[in-house]
Parts: sequence; structure tokens; C-alpha cells
Amino acid sequence: MPKKLLRVALIGQGFMGRAHSNAYRQAPRFFDLPFEIECRVICGRDAGRLRWTAETWGWKEISTDWEEVASRPDIDLVDIATPNSLHCPIALAAAKAGKMVLCEKPLATSLDDAMRMASAAARTPNMVWFNYRRVPAVAFARQLVESGRLGQIYHYRATYLQEWGPTRPPGNWKLQRAEAGSGVLGDLASHLVDTALWLNGPITSVSALLHTFAPGRDVDDAALFQARFANGSIGTFEATRYATGRRNCNAFEIHGERGMLRFDLEYMNHLEFLDATDPREVRGPRRLLVTDFEHPYAGHFWKPGHLLGYEHTFIAALADFLEAAARGESPQPDFHDGARTQAVLDAAERSAASGTWQEVKAI
Amino acid sequence: MPKKLLRVALIGQGFMGRAHSNAYRQAPRFFDLPFEIECRVICGRDAGRLRWTAETWGWKEISTDWEEVASRPDIDLVDIATPNSLHCPIALAAAKAGKMVLCEKPLATSLDDAMRMASAAARTPNMVWFNYRRVPAVAFARQLVESGRLGQIYHYRATYLQEWGPTRPPGNWKLQRAEAGSGVLGDLASHLVDTALWLNGPITSVSALLHTFAPGRDVDDAALFQARFANGSIGTFEATRYATGRRNCNAFEIHGERGMLRFDLEYMNHLEFLDATDPREVRGPRRLLVTDFEHPYAGHFWKPGHLLGYEHTFIAALADFLEAAARGESPQPDFHDGARTQAVLDAAERSAASGTWQEVKAI
Amino acid sequence: MPKKLLRVALIGQGFMGRAHSNAYRQAPRFFDLPFEIECRVICGRDAGRLRWTAETWGWKEISTDWEEVASRPDIDLVDIATPNSLHCPIALAAAKAGKMVLCEKPLATSLDDAMRMASAAARTPNMVWFNYRRVPAVAFARQLVESGRLGQIYHYRATYLQEWGPTRPPGNWKLQRAEAGSGVLGDLASHLVDTALWLNGPITSVSALLHTFAPGRDVDDAALFQARFANGSIGTFEATRYATGRRNCNAFEIHGERGMLRFDLEYMNHLEFLDATDPREVRGPRRLLVTDFEHPYAGHFWKPGHLLGYEHTFIAALADFLEAAARGESPQPDFHDGARTQAVLDAAERSAASGTWQEVKAI
Amino acid sequence: MPKKLLRVALIGQGFMGRAHSNAYRQAPRFFDLPFEIECRVICGRDAGRLRWTAETWGWKEISTDWEEVASRPDIDLVDIATPNSLHCPIALAAAKAGKMVLCEKPLATSLDDAMRMASAAARTPNMVWFNYRRVPAVAFARQLVESGRLGQIYHYRATYLQEWGPTRPPGNWKLQRAEAGSGVLGDLASHLVDTALWLNGPITSVSALLHTFAPGRDVDDAALFQARFANGSIGTFEATRYATGRRNCNAFEIHGERGMLRFDLEYMNHLEFLDATDPREVRGPRRLLVTDFEHPYAGHFWKPGHLLGYEHTFIAALADFLEAAARGESPQPDFHDGARTQAVLDAAERSAASGTWQEVKAI
Repeated sequence: MPKKLLRVALIGQGFMGRAHSNAYRQAPRFFDLPFEIECRVICGRDAGRLRWTAETWGWKEISTDWEEVASRPDIDLVDIATPNSLHCPIALAAAKAGKMVLCEKPLATSLDDAMRMASAAARTPNMVWFNYRRVPAVAFARQLVESGRLGQIYHYRATYLQEWGPTRPPGNWKLQRAEAGSGVLGDLASHLVDTALWLNGPITSVSALLHTFAPGRDVDDAALFQARFANGSIGTFEATRYATGRRNCNAFEIHGERGMLRFDLEYMNHLEFLDATDPREVRGPRRLLVTDFEHPYAGHFWKPGHLLGYEHTFIAALADFLEAAARGESPQPDFHDGARTQAVLDAAERSAASGTWQEVKAI
Repeated sequence: MPKKLLRVALIGQGFMGRAHSNAYRQAPRFFDLPFEIECRVICGRDAGRLRWTAETWGWKEISTDWEEVASRPDIDLVDIATPNSLHCPIALAAAKAGKMVLCEKPLATSLDDAMRMASAAARTPNMVWFNYRRVPAVAFARQLVESGRLGQIYHYRATYLQEWGPTRPPGNWKLQRAEAGSGVLGDLASHLVDTALWLNGPITSVSALLHTFAPGRDVDDAALFQARFANGSIGTFEATRYATGRRNCNAFEIHGERGMLRFDLEYMNHLEFLDATDPREVRGPRRLLVTDFEHPYAGHFWKPGHLLGYEHTFIAALADFLEAAARGESPQPDFHDGARTQAVLDAAERSAASGTWQEVKAI
Repeated sequence: MPKKLLRVALIGQGFMGRAHSNAYRQAPRFFDLPFEIECRVICGRDAGRLRWTAETWGWKEISTDWEEVASRPDIDLVDIATPNSLHCPIALAAAKAGKMVLCEKPLATSLDDAMRMASAAARTPNMVWFNYRRVPAVAFARQLVESGRLGQIYHYRATYLQEWGPTRPPGNWKLQRAEAGSGVLGDLASHLVDTALWLNGPITSVSALLHTFAPGRDVDDAALFQARFANGSIGTFEATRYATGRRNCNAFEIHGERGMLRFDLEYMNHLEFLDATDPREVRGPRRLLVTDFEHPYAGHFWKPGHLLGYEHTFIAALADFLEAAARGESPQPDFHDGARTQAVLDAAERSAASGTWQEVKAI
Repeated sequence: MPKKLLRVALIGQGFMGRAHSNAYRQAPRFFDLPFEIECRVICGRDAGRLRWTAETWGWKEISTDWEEVASRPDIDLVDIATPNSLHCPIALAAAKAGKMVLCEKPLATSLDDAMRMASAAARTPNMVWFNYRRVPAVAFARQLVESGRLGQIYHYRATYLQEWGPTRPPGNWKLQRAEAGSGVLGDLASHLVDTALWLNGPITSVSALLHTFAPGRDVDDAALFQARFANGSIGTFEATRYATGRRNCNAFEIHGERGMLRFDLEYMNHLEFLDATDPREVRGPRRLLVTDFEHPYAGHFWKPGHLLGYEHTFIAALADFLEAAARGESPQPDFHDGARTQAVLDAAERSAASGTWQEVKAI
């Protein structure tokens, strides 16, 4: 029995467009998908480069008109990989046209937009590309937490450290509020928050500091916040592009009654796990190489001991999405999850502006 | 020419009393001191144990009356290693009697006390035992910062993570506000702040969260705060006794325009240094084994490649103190430095109580 | 101008067949190749599984007759990913038919075979799939050595540690001498030797110990040897499948007059480099994240700080091969390089049998 | 009841003389010893420096005549910390005079000498200062092996890597065969072998390579050997002073049926332990901080999480010696153990000379 065809339109041909294109190409080779994927159209602003991108990645058509693409009848799935400011209008248009919708993170540039998007997309499968949930080590961390291996959580500590802030030219859209909506808050802290909500549950209030080092820049270069979680634990978050010496250190550490977890994206195939129920003399952080058949996702790719990289997170996320979509469902993190993350970022912005603790709006 | 005699009274025979006793015994063997040290009297509450302590460490006399000891004419130096609440009265008495004064950290249980102590001791050599300034790796970090190897500082990040909070019996004085003054704020965060002020200069304001996990406990189990430094950098601090899996992780990481530093007390002989002026392809954190003749303190002890431990920080601190004292001066960190740290803790307490940012009082 | 078509036949559909298939699919997306690749035919023993493999990876045809495939006129490149014992007959047939030839490692099961293969393939582009030469960190190590950053080499130390020896069922062809030719010697030590020859030049003599732990097994479970290199340095090599706790620890460490290098495949995106010309106080192993544009291969894939995995080594190797092949040349490591590695393994076998040092045959 | 007096003569005032002196001073403060130690006389060649050493460390007398000292009636214990070539004559003289004897490693410069020493000292408590047996992490490794946590051993791998070979002036006695007997073989490999025999039992045969890099030097700069152990495991050993970038990397790794251990002296407070009976998904090397009350020796010093250093190994070794000596016994490693290590070094020398495997003489 032939698989049902899934006709995809990808909006965006930058770094993310490339990562998504790769996922469409590779997912069928590592996962038994419920759909046959057709890369129907790729949409972008630069037609010349679009042709090259389409040829390289096998997109059948190109377009420079996202509004037309988002509502084409021959498209089943609209995948948004544009600068942040376009996420909302495209998603709303696609949802209105009844398409499945995938959207890059952060879901939106404001909580209001995020909630409108979540509401609009509620009738059709959707997902936010918080790809790091599909790092096998992170997904395995979630399993350990879920199965109670950490017990009651005390502390959550997360950093996303990059170093390109001082050096990158202002032409980069990520440094323009008009396109990005915010600086590291939406770009990096959103990843931290998404992971934290997944691993440790809702955040109820935050106290934040946003800081811009570069003169004349209208977005935050660094975002720090403390958080109270609904489960009684407390957390610290730090996202910055001024962490000289750290290329892509998206890290978390969790301390619970019964154990500890530590992860760092620069060592993404590893996870540190301490089992506090081990006898004290042999208790120490275990350096797990999360590449076994027993670990999430890893068995779909190569063999135990063979490392995975950045792109595999997108492939696995797409596979999860399609499996859920075939049942008419949305996998985590869907647009509501994306809006929950946005609500924390929103509280952080309010806190930084007021200098006080702010409640996270319940959504 | 014989060295001048320095007659020492040590008040306190707990863990710190032992560490100080060891320093008096060992310092003359590794440093060419300007004084001949006489361990004249050790003072404590438990006379039976005092005898054993005195015999083990070679104290000539014992006493259970610190007030008498602090003003005895045959004492030149009073060393305070008692629970925190006694620091102030003993230091004031000793200073009034014209003694040199050494005091364990935190200097006091309130900023007022700390300032009174700093004022009282101003005429005589004094020092606070923030011993970690004498970890060779930390002292070398200071040299690198001082010599401009990091350039303008962007971020300072410090944690002091311990795990004994859930398990320790309430008899421990560190868990009683009456004796300790505070919980991790004075015990652990004080170390973080002292090191931060030394390496990165004054903190101007903080936003703090204090949290107690254990029911019925009247001191803080965890202290988190964000900080603004006078040099324009921003910082995060976290001290806790609920960090399952971390025994004694007193760590800092500094990101500057020209480099990065990272230190962790659980690996106290090492320092990570990244030189951002290295060509990009060979730029990475260098794992320095800080045991060379070129490094601070290390050459006084064993040979390059031979590790030092906890106790050596006290030995080196004492040697520094005596060298300064011989000139009638106080080495860093003196009681004024101790009060500066106390001012940050004071602002943190005010911030935690009010939920707002608080200025650090200038002293 | 359309690119010249390159029609590929892949013999083998196991783990390596999958890794090669992936390379044919992915290379055009990350490299500007001189050929258009056509995946014409995949050949294997199990026809049922072949159909699934062909469909998954897009091979146009399937075949169970390698002899026919190797000489088909519509094939330009024969890629051998079979058990070791078939490498030689297939390569000879393909070479005789004038095909370009790629062959998995080890090139052969004997030095004689390897030399025949090298000789036969001399007129056509060829390469051995020692894929780890294309780990960016390993390729960058080679650049550092080549540019003199280590100076005169003193020591070379290599291990390939796996742990599946005690547990794997005997049905695995790698545990049968008839198919594998040897145990870890050909499977793991061959990688070590290939890398060593590339980084440190010819090995002149070895003293080896081969050991089988499993009762009744007819291949070596562990291979240890000491080596003398032509450049005056000395080396130790250890390959084993009984290294409990190590999944895939293919590691080397090199000590030279001016620096040190250390690599471990379980952390394949990192390389440790120590520059011994740094001032002593700031001299330490630098932990490089080898994902920058300045590093080999990395710039073709994602962005700095985004990790690569196992499969990217095959993609990059294929790209290198095709670039050379377009000029009628063979890239490193060609079959002659493969035979040089085989000569070291041959000396190791002779040494283990005789209990004496053995010269490596010059080829 | 007063403790029995133990009157000590220390022969040697170099680096080891200092480490031993410190042990005599510090052991009574951390251990409840069965003797009262009297530092009676220190003996050396340089009288001027002797006076300073004696004053610094509290030796009552000085002497430049070891023969007289070794037989003085008012001496109970002779401690030998001289260059290697004097170990044998001094030990024989002291044993003949009925003294307890402590001797620095390696026990002797030849197997014959070592056996004569072991025989002569048999009637009186003795010990070789292989101090690294008293690193808490190493002693704990022994406990884990003894209790079967590793099961049957497959592999033992040890390195002792230093880097001062190229730079040290020839005046150093360690570089003179007449005084040292050998180069790294006696200096560094002896440590490796002593630890290996303790952790993994007897070595039955070895195949060795000795190499001298420095022109004109008459001792080995590097020593490599493979070994077969009586328990069926196989091992590799490498000791060198030409390992650029490694200051004092005395490391071992053991792979057994049920677990793995890894230790490195540059991180001497840590031990890596993998329990292969853990479920596969949470199996990884545990980084133990070996500073707990449950660990050997650690509880005698500071608190959990407070690091120990080089000197503590001597203090603990002395405490063990005195405890055994009070019962008229010798602790491990006694002179017979020292001779067993010498037998392995002897076989290594014969193997390096002959180019063949050599049996280790049973003693």
C-alpha cells in the first residue's frame, strides 16, 4: 500500500532552511514514516539563490511569494524558517488555509502573537522547531526525570553561551529588533526555556536582567533570569552572545533529591547522570555516551558509539511530527508549548523593564 | 639575628581551628617567615577535647574563656575560628586590646558589625580567612586579569554547590540563624563574592532570591543573585547546599573581550584559560596545571606537577599575612575587604526581602 | 554545462553499505562535486533486504551477482563494502574492467593481496575508506603536524578500544577468520595504523602481541604493538574489543618537541592541542572545538559550534575522492596507502607469531 | 600511658628528604600512631644545607656520615632517601644493625641487590616508599578490585608521562647511570609496576623497548613494555620523560568483565569507575571524588570534598608503616614487594637488550 503523499512548502532558505531541507531528505532513510514526502516548493526573497537551493536540495519549485504559497491547494504542510517577525503572519495564513504548520523558534515575537498562532493552528497538526528536544541525550534526560530517577527537583540551572556578539556585522537580522523581536531572549533563552518546561514543568515567576553591550544595538546581547517553578524548585538562566570562549554551550544541570543531570550541547552525544541512591563511595556523575539502541532516536541512525550531530535533531523532530500528524495530532512541542515558552520570555521582558519579579501568564 | 616572636591565641577548635593550627605548624616549613610563631593558647568550649587538640597540634595552653584570652598581654595575634556570631565580639575585644586579628569568613553576621570590626581593627594588621584567594589557580587568575589578558569583562558567573543540605542534622551550628547569621549566604556566597570582588571589582547592585528547602529551618539553603559590576559587566551567583552530586563545587567563569577563565575547586590545581587573541583555529580553553614555579605559591611547596590540597590555602594565606604584618600592614583581604563582601550580602538580603534590585552600600 | 555522470555500483548492504549510500546522497548537498552521481546498482546476498535497501537509499537496481556488476559497462565506479575476504577478488575484477574502485578497510586480508590490489588499481582512481582521516579534528591534526607545530616527534600512542568482544554472537562475520582475515588487527588496528602513517610517517619495525580471550574464537580479540617510526619516534598501539566501558575509543596522542596533540573519536568534534612554545605559566592542552570555517571540511556542513557525526566522515571522503578522480588521480589514502598499512599489520602478525621484533616490508 | 619512642634517622635531604620530613611532622596530627616519633638525625652530603634543613624540619642533629648513622644505637628507624645507588649499601648496613628500614623507590638498581636487601631486612619492619599506593583513589581502586567489582581482568594499561627530558641539565643524578641505575625504568616505570602488581597481581613475562632520545645520555628516556599477567590479562606500560604536555601523568586504566577503572595522578583526588552491571542505558564511567569518610585515608585529613595533595601520600604511608611496625610486621609494599617490582624491571631490561619476550624471575 503506497504511503499518503505529503506536499511540503518551505518558507526560508537560510541556515534553517538548509537544516529543514536536509531533514526532509534524510528522515525517510532513517525512519519508517507514515507519509511519502514531496518537497514541492521552496520560498524565499532572493530568487537567484533560491534556484541554487532548490537544485541542491531537490525542491520542485521556487517562489518569492509566501502568501501565495501558504494557501496553495497543492500544499499540505507549510514550514516556516524565516526571520522571527514573519512567523506569525505566515502561520496564521497557513492555518487559515488548513495546512499543517511547522514553525522555527521562537514561535513569535510577542506573547499575543504566539497565542493567536496557537489558537489558529489548533485544528491542524503543528510543531515548533525546538530541535534540541530531539538530541538523544536530552530526550533521555526527559525519560530519566519522568521515571523519577531524580526525585523531587531542587535546582535547575541553564546557560546558552555564544561568543559572536562583539564581532558580527549589524546586517544580521538577528541583531535587528524589527526582524528578530528580541536578541538572545528569543534566539537562545527560548531554547533554554523550552527545554526547562519539558524537563521540569511550568515556571511561575521570573526576575530578569536584559543587557546590551554593543553600542547602538536595539536587541539584548545577554539575558539573565531567576525562576520559580511550579514544582517548588528554583532556577537560574543565562543566555548571551558575549561569552568569549564558548561557541554553542547550550547546557543545563538539574539537582534532585535522588540524582543529578548535566548536559552541554558542545558534547551533545554525552549526558552526565548521577544516581544519588548509589552507595556513597561509588557515587559520581556517570558520563553516558547516549548512542545506544536503548536510548531515544539513536538506534535509528548508526551504531552504538557512533556519534550524531546537529542535523539529526531536525531529522528526528520531523519523524516525530509526521508520526503524530498521521494520527491528526501534534507532537510536543506544539504551538501551545511554544506559547508557554513565549509567556516566560514575556514575563522576563516585563521583569527586566520593571526591576521586579513578574508572574508568568498562565495560558 | 633571631626572628621576632609572634604569640598566637586561636579561638575555636572545630574544623577551622584544625585548618588554622595546621597552618601555624606548616607555614614556617614552606615560607621564610618574618616571625617565629609560638602557638601559645587555644581556646574553646569543650575542655576535654581542647586538651586533645592542644596536644595534637602543639598549643601550649588551653582556655575556655575567650574574653580573658583576647586581652592577655602575652598574646600578639588573636585568630577567630568560632561560629559566626562570635566573630564580632571577639574581634572588637582583640582589636581594643591592640592585637593583630585574623577572622574566619564571613567577617560578620551583619554589615553593621562588619563595619564596626573593620573600623576597630584599622590600627593593627588584620585579615579575613577567605582562604580560596590563595589557591594558586585563583591567585594566577587574578594575575591574568590584572595584566589585561581578559580585556574588558562582559560576564562573571559563579556557583558554590554543595549537597549536604537535605541530610545534615539540625545540631550543626551552620543551620542555626542564632549562631550562623544566615545559611549559604554567609557560608558559601561570601566566598563567591570575595573572589568576585577581587577578580572583577566592585558590585553595585544585586537582585537576589533566598530559598529554604528544609521545613522548619531558619536559614537559607540556597541563594541566587544577579549582579551589576562597576566595570560594566554583569554576573550571576548561585550558592546552595541542595546541589545533589556536587560536593564542593566552588566555581567561577569569566568572559572578557580578550579571554576566558574557568575554575572549579573540585579541580583546584587546574585553571582553564582561553586566549581570544589566539588564531581562531587553535583557540580553545587551555587546561593549565597550576603547579609551576611561575605560578603563585606553588613553588613554595613541592615540584611542578605535584598537587596541592585544601590546607595549602591556609598556609599561604598565613604567610602572606605575616609578611604584611611585619611591615605593620594588612594583606588582602583585610577587614575592610570583608566588610565590602558583607555589603553585597546585605544588599542580597534586602533584595530577597523586597523582590527588587538593591544598591550595594558603598563603604 | 551539465556535470559528467558517475554511475556507481555498491557491493554490500550492511552497516557500511548504509554509510556509503548515505554519502552518495549527501555529498552533492554539501560539496560542489565535479560529477553528477547516479546510484545505479546495489549488490548483496539477501535479495529481499536488497529491495528495501535500494528503495530506502534510491539505488535504481539490485543484484546478487557481484561478478557481473563489477564488469558492467554502464558502471564507472565500483564501491566495495563487503566482508574483508571479498575485497581482493572484487577489486581485482573491477580494476581489470577499468572501473574506479573504492574499498572498505582493511584493504585486504593479507599483504600479498593488498599489493596485488594496489598494483591492479594503479591505472584508475581508487581509495580505501579509512574514513577517520576525514574527521575534521584528525585532518586538522595533520595540518598542525605538517606545518611543524609539533616539531620533532618523540612519542605516538594510539588505542582503539571497544567492549563488545565478550558479548557478540559468533555469527558476526567479524569474528570469523574465513571472512574477516583477522580480528581487531584488521578491524581496529588498521584504523590506528592508517592514521599513524598519515600523521607520523612510516613505521619501520614492530613488536606485537595478539591475544584471543574468547574460547574457540579463531581471530584476535586484542592486538598490542610497539613500533619504531622512520622519523625516530616510538609508538604504542592497542586495539581490543575487551575494553569494558569504552564504546568506540579510537584515540591518539602525539608528543613532539614543540607540542602535543590528543584525539578521541568518542569526542570527535574536539582536538586537544598543546603549544609547547607558549610561556610555561599559560601552557596547557587547548580543547579545540573543530567546527570552524578555518578547519578542514567543517565549513561545508553547518555552522561553527554545530557538531558533526560519524556519517560526515564518509561524505567528506567521497567528496575528496571525486575531486581527485575528476583529475584522473587518487586521493589519500589510495590502495598503495592501504597496502602500507597492511604491511604493518603483516609485520605485527609475524612478530606475534615469533615473539621478536619484525621489520615492516617496504612497498 | 606514654607511647614508645621511635628515633628516626633520615638519610637524604633532597626533594624526597623534604617529603619524608614532612610526613614525620604531620602523621601524628592526622593519625593516632602507636609511636612517638623523634626526628633524631638527618644525614646528607652538604653540611651547610643540612643545618637549614634540620632547622626547618626539626631534626635534632645533622650528620654527613651515613655509615655511622645507620648503626647508631640510639636510632630505631633508618629512612633512605638518597640517590638509588646508595639504597642497597645503606639498607644492608641498617638491617645488619637491626634497624627498621624505609627505602625510597626503586628499591635497588639491580634485582640481585633488591633480593639481598629483602633478605637482609626480613627480620625487621620495612617498607618501600611507593607512595602512590596511598593515594586514596588508588587505594580505593584496590578495594574495588579486591571485592570483585571488576570481575575477571582483561586489560591493564599504564602510563607515566613527564616532559622534562629534553630540558633538564645533565647534573641531575637521575640522568646518571652511576647514581640512578637506570632512567625512567627505575624512576617512573617502577611506580607503574608496583601499582600494577598491587592491583592486578604478578606479571609473568614482558616485551620491552628502552629508548634514549638525548645524545650522550646513558640512561633510558623512555621505557615501553607489553606484559602478560598471571591472571590471564595483558598489559601495556609506557614511561617517558619526553611526553610534551604531560607534567606528571601517572595513569592506569583497567578493563574487567564487570567494570572499568581509570586514574590519573594529575587528578589524584578523582577515580573513574564504570560498573558494567549497570543497565546499559545508564552505564558510564563515574567520576568519583575520592575524599569521603568511606574512602581509604581521606577521613583522617579534612572533610569530604576537600582535596588532598602529593604530600598526603607520604603521611598515610608512614602511618600504615608504623601501625604494622608496632606489631613487628611490615606493611605493603615491603622489600619483598619492592624486589618483585625489580624483577619486572629486570625482565624489561633483558627483553630490551635481546628483542624478545622475557620471563619475570619468580622471587
